[in-house]
Amino acid sequence: MPCDPLHSFSYRINIPQPGAFRHPARRKSAGGGESSSGPRPARHLHTFPGVIGLALIAILSDFGQTEYVGILRGVIQRLAPGTTVTDLYNEVRPQSIREGAWVLYTAYRYFPEDTIFLCVVDPGVGSDRQALAIRTRRYFFVGPDNGLLFPAVTEDGLKEAVQLPIPPDAAPTFHARDVFAPAAARLAAGTPMNELGPSAEIKARLRFHKKGREGEIVRVDRFGNIITNLPHIGKDSYHVIVEGYRRTLPFVRTYAEAPRGRLFVTEGSAGTLEISLRNRSAWSVMDVPLGSKITIE
Amino acid sequence: MPCDPLHSFSYRINIPQPGAFRHPARRKSAGGGESSSGPRPARHLHTFPGVIGLALIAILSDFGQTEYVGILRGVIQRLAPGTTVTDLYNEVRPQSIREGAWVLYTAYRYFPEDTIFLCVVDPGVGSDRQALAIRTRRYFFVGPDNGLLFPAVTEDGLKEAVQLPIPPDAAPTFHARDVFAPAAARLAAGTPMNELGPSAEIKARLRFHKKGREGEIVRVDRFGNIITNLPHIGKDSYHVIVEGYRRTLPFVRTYAEAPRGRLFVTEGSAGTLEISLRNRSAWSVMDVPLGSKITIE
Amino acid sequence: MPCDPLHSFSYRINIPQPGAFRHPARRKSAGGGESSSGPRPARHLHTFPGVIGLALIAILSDFGQTEYVGILRGVIQRLAPGTTVTDLYNEVRPQSIREGAWVLYTAYRYFPEDTIFLCVVDPGVGSDRQALAIRTRRYFFVGPDNGLLFPAVTEDGLKEAVQLPIPPDAAPTFHARDVFAPAAARLAAGTPMNELGPSAEIKARLRFHKKGREGEIVRVDRFGNIITNLPHIGKDSYHVIVEGYRRTLPFVRTYAEAPRGRLFVTEGSAGTLEISLRNRSAWSVMDVPLGSKITIE
Repeated sequence: MPCDPLHSFSYRINIPQPGAFRHPARRKSAGGGESSSGPRPARHLHTFPGVIGLALIAILSDFGQTEYVGILRGVIQRLAPGTTVTDLYNEVRPQSIREGAWVLYTAYRYFPEDTIFLCVVDPGVGSDRQALAIRTRRYFFVGPDNGLLFPAVTEDGLKEAVQLPIPPDAAPTFHARDVFAPAAARLAAGTPMNELGPSAEIKARLRFHKKGREGEIVRVDRFGNIITNLPHIGKDSYHVIVEGYRRTLPFVRTYAEAPRGRLFVTEGSAGTLEISLRNRSAWSVMDVPLGSKITIE
Repeated sequence: MPCDPLHSFSYRINIPQPGAFRHPARRKSAGGGESSSGPRPARHLHTFPGVIGLALIAILSDFGQTEYVGILRGVIQRLAPGTTVTDLYNEVRPQSIREGAWVLYTAYRYFPEDTIFLCVVDPGVGSDRQALAIRTRRYFFVGPDNGLLFPAVTEDGLKEAVQLPIPPDAAPTFHARDVFAPAAARLAAGTPMNELGPSAEIKARLRFHKKGREGEIVRVDRFGNIITNLPHIGKDSYHVIVEGYRRTLPFVRTYAEAPRGRLFVTEGSAGTLEISLRNRSAWSVMDVPLGSKITIE
Repeated sequence: MPCDPLHSFSYRINIPQPGAFRHPARRKSAGGGESSSGPRPARHLHTFPGVIGLALIAILSDFGQTEYVGILRGVIQRLAPGTTVTDLYNEVRPQSIREGAWVLYTAYRYFPEDTIFLCVVDPGVGSDRQALAIRTRRYFFVGPDNGLLFPAVTEDGLKEAVQLPIPPDAAPTFHARDVFAPAAARLAAGTPMNELGPSAEIKARLRFHKKGREGEIVRVDRFGNIITNLPHIGKDSYHVIVEGYRRTLPFVRTYAEAPRGRLFVTEGSAGTLEISLRNRSAWSVMDVPLGSKITIE
């Protein structure tokens, strides 16, 4: 009696060992950091699109807790049933490409290889900015070509970028639903990059300012912490120069050790310096614009 | 040597090809738009409740980001382990059946067939309003009989409605947990509709006002956009008549093209006209009640 | 021809029947409420970590809708691919251990057995408070030893607690990412408790005050309802004594029956008494501190 594992359209699932998942697009790359030995179960993804739960899509947007994110989830499940969809962050300040780029840059590395980041902070939606799908050394990124993806893509190592076509019936205010989510879902279902669109150059090259100990204020978080892109260099106190301010602030390791009623410097979870105030918003007493140059030395 | 695919209680998973999932309830229906050929793997759902990840439940509620939604997720995972549970939208204005109905009506179509919509905007919880589970041509809807489900159900095509019994120990303020989530989970696990309760008539028949070019304000979103149920008819400018207002406003295709400091009309992602103000809330300068009749021609 | 179910690294998935999932740690326990007969498919979890979707992690935190929760989800998917991760509640008032403990205590019971609760309300992060993983009769809890887990753990029945080591490179402000999420993920992937750390004693023993009909205000929810830990005892009206207030308030069963403009008492979804005001915040007119002792008789 024959033993046919594909009998009656059923299918044996591969064990998703950490790092074992490989998108078919990987097969094109000549090395690039991936191990070349061992099982490559992702070929099944290519053959049988939509296999349950092997692909992971993480959403970053400025949509807040709206139904717009819910609709993206619906679109993805329709095109790639069973894909795990997770929210990275949807509370980017509306249209703040810079904040979105910083959060993506500091967070992407904690996700498993081959995660597909669906990123939408897109003030130019409906204009002629490109829509992109990008493969890097270890990940995929889908979103507008406005700088949002650039710091993460550059750090991880660009391998391939394609321009997503805009269907004629796409809503001019909602490419997230009609362009980006479908592209992310197709990647999740195993579609090769080159079937998503023609090869493209990334145009918008957002870089965070950094020159020695001069960096920038990349973000103010919801607690009012003023976050920079400057790393801790082991000092007990720092000279801080930004806009009209010029101060010496103590460095403390944890909030529990922080002085009361006085600004201090600490190392945030992204490994960079932050200016904080215990139980209050530092930004409410040190009113500097997002994006300002700042020196901490 | 026998090859028993069900040996040791393991199970071969079906490939969830787009559209391949079919709830057992479909077997009752005589056609109704479903293809009748091809594999019908959902029979396994019936035989083995709770098969991983084949069913999708989408939640719409006015619970906000509370633990009430978290508890619904727990209840579902307890009764139908592995079901994919996704948030459609939980920020409906508290008790606004009308807003909930509009969001559901405009969003349900983006979800895969057989999605189970668990919908709770329920000011009458604990009263004698019916609790319903509904099967339409392509979807399932579970929620109170107060109009919330009606526009979506009517558009997709009602096939079958049953009345969910209220267990004597159900919390009178939380039928979401004790009545609706269990019903949605049982559908996800393959329970046939007629085991959920006796056949029922839908009583609350909410309809959005529309008579020629007179419609209604169906929603004000969190950005202050005033959303109507009137479609775009290709004009460059529109006469808007609502409450005391009577104005001519330009139509713009994308926010990027919008004038500064002046109200304009655009086509929202649901395909209907919205009144907007660039970088500000249109509602803050055009203070009309939700539900008002409005003419845009 | 041999029929090898593990050929080519594929794997047959077990049917996750309700209650069928068993973490390997259960094998140590001598009874304790678990049924000892029937299939125990979780042994596969032990052998093949990361099998899709069998384990469930529920997150409770005071992170709000930040990327911090998104990063936890990424860490979990990296270490235990395919794990179902769900939000229980992330809007605990910042650093309010007491509110977090109450929500966890009232909500955990609605989740399936073997759910892993990843709980982070952690004002002492970076100090010398212990980091714990706990197995109870039916669940797992991971979080700081500051009282947050204690009421739920005590009620369900403590079986085993281990102290999680803090890696030298853990961010002192983000143990959630570097200590707790990895531990929860390892449990999800089938790692036995005793491989997570040495056996530990729980130190912080938070208890909600309750002595006859004197209890405490355990929470004020986002609607301004004042929630106590006192059960309903069937009365039509209650004498309420708290701080300077001493009143008799009517009991109503549902919000729909509530009087307008007058405080009333109702039974909340957790089965305890709440003081409410229809369509308004009761807390805005009865300004009592969270944690106050209150008598309702």
